[in-house]
Amino acid sequence: MEICFSPELVHVHDLQGKTVVVVDIFRATSTMVTALANGVEGIRPVEDLEQCRRLAGSGYVTAGERNGKKEEGFELGNSPLSYLGDAYKGRKVAMTTTNGTVAIERSKKQAAEILIGAFLNLQATADYLRGKQRPVLILCAGWKGKFNLEDSLYAGALASLLHFPYDCDGTLAMESLYRQVSGDMGGFLKKASHAKRLQNQNIEADIDFCLSLDKYPLVVRLDGDEIVAEKNPHLA
Amino acid sequence: MEICFSPELVHVHDLQGKTVVVVDIFRATSTMVTALANGVEGIRPVEDLEQCRRLAGSGYVTAGERNGKKEEGFELGNSPLSYLGDAYKGRKVAMTTTNGTVAIERSKKQAAEILIGAFLNLQATADYLRGKQRPVLILCAGWKGKFNLEDSLYAGALASLLHFPYDCDGTLAMESLYRQVSGDMGGFLKKASHAKRLQNQNIEADIDFCLSLDKYPLVVRLDGDEIVAEKNPHLA
Repeated sequence: MEICFSPELVHVHDLQGKTVVVVDIFRATSTMVTALANGVEGIRPVEDLEQCRRLAGSGYVTAGERNGKKEEGFELGNSPLSYLGDAYKGRKVAMTTTNGTVAIERSKKQAAEILIGAFLNLQATADYLRGKQRPVLILCAGWKGKFNLEDSLYAGALASLLHFPYDCDGTLAMESLYRQVSGDMGGFLKKASHAKRLQNQNIEADIDFCLSLDKYPLVVRLDGDEIVAEKNPHLA
Repeated sequence: MEICFSPELVHVHDLQGKTVVVVDIFRATSTMVTALANGVEGIRPVEDLEQCRRLAGSGYVTAGERNGKKEEGFELGNSPLSYLGDAYKGRKVAMTTTNGTVAIERSKKQAAEILIGAFLNLQATADYLRGKQRPVLILCAGWKGKFNLEDSLYAGALASLLHFPYDCDGTLAMESLYRQVSGDMGGFLKKASHAKRLQNQNIEADIDFCLSLDKYPLVVRLDGDEIVAEKNPHLA
């Protein structure tokens, strides 16, 4: 298994035949997992705002943020909390985000399968991957092309549950760091630059939610153009 | 201060007005520091093998490796041990390497100053940077565009000596990891993929040498086209 720390580094990794787990903890993939766990039927990730707006005409709920802020004219921003309860049950959502969607788009062509990872469904994802025994690449959405801590630590957490063989320094580094800080991951992650930016926007409730472990026993994957909950993860 | 984990990510960082510390522990920058500490007058880093060969006609000693192996027709490979003693005292060296030279070339245009870092001259580099108080970006040469452990841990080590302010998750991650493993850095780093590749080539002596701390109290920097030892680091 291996870790790719930024969508800007996808070209130096070989994705062929691999399961790619895309992660954008604050907040795209956490929000996707939450939406599907709360009855949303499917999520269409799109790169640009215009395409997202057009999908509103086809019955999609539009969700979009740029630089951590909700886009004007969109029904939703990128808070996972918006989807709690039955608010969007049975609906489809078109979602565009700063970093997360780019990561999905860049891995589509080569990967054998694309999963959506978050701390919220960490164990379920690990169980599924262990069942498959296919090589795994964890693709961190990062922040504007740079390494970010929350996605990288998720990668370390997932690696430490998988026990897959690796020849990847990123995995060695992040597994070690995760073991070091897992006792107080929230405290450590709140020092991360992205978390600090979000704190400035008063969305600490989102941060805490995104760092909850295993709230949803759900495997989430890309199926064609749509992100959906895996119905029978043990039979897949 | 900040860390850039790969030459492939230089474009997402802003180098303007910064001191860039280029690091390629196994083995380019360790070799450069060693050569200059042992009397080599200057090192010309060049990207391609042909340019390196041509410089032999101008009196340069040629040193080159690709994928960790010495290039045919070159006088030297990339072992720091070749420079010990007076073997190349007073000579100039033209050096091309897999990852290190690329990192230098990519930062030349924007950086205010380029230093060459290695564990061998860690403290001297930290002292110099603390004296200057200019923003610092540590540029890891990486391995074929990917994150590598030895360069990243060097970055964490340097950051922990600098105590400069930062808004960079890479610095937070690597400073934490360095503090965790600094008691047995050699043991931890020998698990790194690059170190394992070098072990397969029976150059464990090189690895141990490159991981020696503060063997040379020398500041090394790029001056025009040449890498030289800073004569008066305290007056610079």
